[in-house]
Amino acid sequence: MGEFDLIARYFTRPARKAALGVGDDCALLAPAPGMQLAVSSDMLVEGRHFFADVSPEALGHKALAVNLSDLAACGARPLAFTLALALPRVDEPWLAAFARGLLRLADAHGCELVGGDTTRGPLNICITVFGEVHAGQALLRSGARAGDDLYVSGTLGDARLALEALLGRIRLPAATLARARERLERPTPRVALGLALRGIASSAMDVSDGLLGDLGHILKASGAGACVDASITTNLIAACAYPESAGGPFDPELIHQCTLAGGDDYELLFTAPPALRDAVAAAAQASGTPVTRIGRIEAQPGLRLVDAQGQAVAHGYASFDHFR
Amino acid sequence: MGEFDLIARYFTRPARKAALGVGDDCALLAPAPGMQLAVSSDMLVEGRHFFADVSPEALGHKALAVNLSDLAACGARPLAFTLALALPRVDEPWLAAFARGLLRLADAHGCELVGGDTTRGPLNICITVFGEVHAGQALLRSGARAGDDLYVSGTLGDARLALEALLGRIRLPAATLARARERLERPTPRVALGLALRGIASSAMDVSDGLLGDLGHILKASGAGACVDASITTNLIAACAYPESAGGPFDPELIHQCTLAGGDDYELLFTAPPALRDAVAAAAQASGTPVTRIGRIEAQPGLRLVDAQGQAVAHGYASFDHFR
Repeated sequence: MGEFDLIARYFTRPARKAALGVGDDCALLAPAPGMQLAVSSDMLVEGRHFFADVSPEALGHKALAVNLSDLAACGARPLAFTLALALPRVDEPWLAAFARGLLRLADAHGCELVGGDTTRGPLNICITVFGEVHAGQALLRSGARAGDDLYVSGTLGDARLALEALLGRIRLPAATLARARERLERPTPRVALGLALRGIASSAMDVSDGLLGDLGHILKASGAGACVDASITTNLIAACAYPESAGGPFDPELIHQCTLAGGDDYELLFTAPPALRDAVAAAAQASGTPVTRIGRIEAQPGLRLVDAQGQAVAHGYASFDHFR
Repeated sequence: MGEFDLIARYFTRPARKAALGVGDDCALLAPAPGMQLAVSSDMLVEGRHFFADVSPEALGHKALAVNLSDLAACGARPLAFTLALALPRVDEPWLAAFARGLLRLADAHGCELVGGDTTRGPLNICITVFGEVHAGQALLRSGARAGDDLYVSGTLGDARLALEALLGRIRLPAATLARARERLERPTPRVALGLALRGIASSAMDVSDGLLGDLGHILKASGAGACVDASITTNLIAACAYPESAGGPFDPELIHQCTLAGGDDYELLFTAPPALRDAVAAAAQASGTPVTRIGRIEAQPGLRLVDAQGQAVAHGYASFDHFR
């Protein structure tokens, strides 16, 4: 099977929202009047972002999910994406499963595959995603203000817990690993929450490299500091609540590491003024996404971690860096 | 140097055209009212699209050039691009040279780097480029009609000639190789010609996989056939005209292979009605880009190659396929 057959068989479907889809030199997108186009690119490399033996269906899901998560963080509605794919060989069952995982998530979000590139090479997946947002309404990292509440959606740390187990550094009960692995391999982009937070959140980003490191980006962009309650974030890992984990085989230090600096969570981290707490709760409910208030933005620069009594907790958690 | 320093040092510049550039979860693009956004992605893999020892400055140029060539083929004006880069290691002199080649070409076309991704992995460069085109004015592959003239811009075959020499399959005089290699490593995207051909060309695409193979895409999309004069295309290779090549060390079969099926030319292949020959000539002159009429579109399906006397020339030239 050649390059053009491969594209036709697995990745070409009729254009719906795009003015022109797969098969010409360019795809054509036409944002509605008054809308801006939000654009984000992510590249996934074997051995770095996923294991060689990952299920191709999960990989197709995750490759798009991490990009949709960037749109969610901007409060943009998914519109379309391009896929560039380097493959060591044409493996049809692999491609069929990859396309299934990819396109199922795309369909769930009405996000259309409009073009791309396929080539032979070490497995590499590069997706560029496009979303629409009303001009001036995008959620940015730079809008956090002293006094704002700090929130995070969903759960934190399970993806990292699974990674530690898969790397052989810790042992987990099989059922716990299976559930945590689901969070690592099939993250849920919080698109509906991002849309619901437009006009409410003062800043937002998605947690991909770890809570504290990513919060650092908001603080830097906003010129502010923050105080985070570690006694709350500790409870945001789902694995501790699994029945088979009762009694807890978990080292508290491991739980801190996973929840505060785990990475691969793809939850939304956002801020909003205290006067909008009811609006935040309504947005969470309308989007079916739990959110938890974990701290507050402060004028004093820096990131302070405290316990339930408000006492400082020492920490040295850094964000994941692909070149460290 | 970490990931964020790397992006800041080499790839972050103030946003000009984009509403929001490098540094948030998404870039924000706002096409002008009545404009569509043309989008294209290309991925370049070491050992497949370039040699490991290629000059990083040339590689930066080529990575963007092949994408701008797709915009040119649509008649779109370059607006912005994203860059996803997998690097085996942080090599600062390499990165500085790569960024120099990339951003010099970007600046020449007013095309702004608005976001992307960097990660560790086998060297892989994935660029997604955005251009603006008036709604309904994009040049497509599907508009060729029987009776239209068939044109190609610039020269054909020199990139492939250089590749054959670099692979050790042929020998070239050093000066000839140097000039042909320039065509392989620093192709010229025909952006100005593409813009000038809006409203004139009935169809267009860029020649990346070889003239006849790429023409096949126009014919398939347009439901037409074509007749190409091989005595004209043969003369479109520049190397034969170099003084040091006088007398010609070149095998005619090699010249046919390079010009008809060479690949990596990044010239524009386009069609226009004979009534618009003066308009085509004016577009070529206005854009400073030579164009040559090489054949015509016919109602009869298939691709016929003829000599100067109109006699059929047998050929078995296929297009380059990344999975064959």
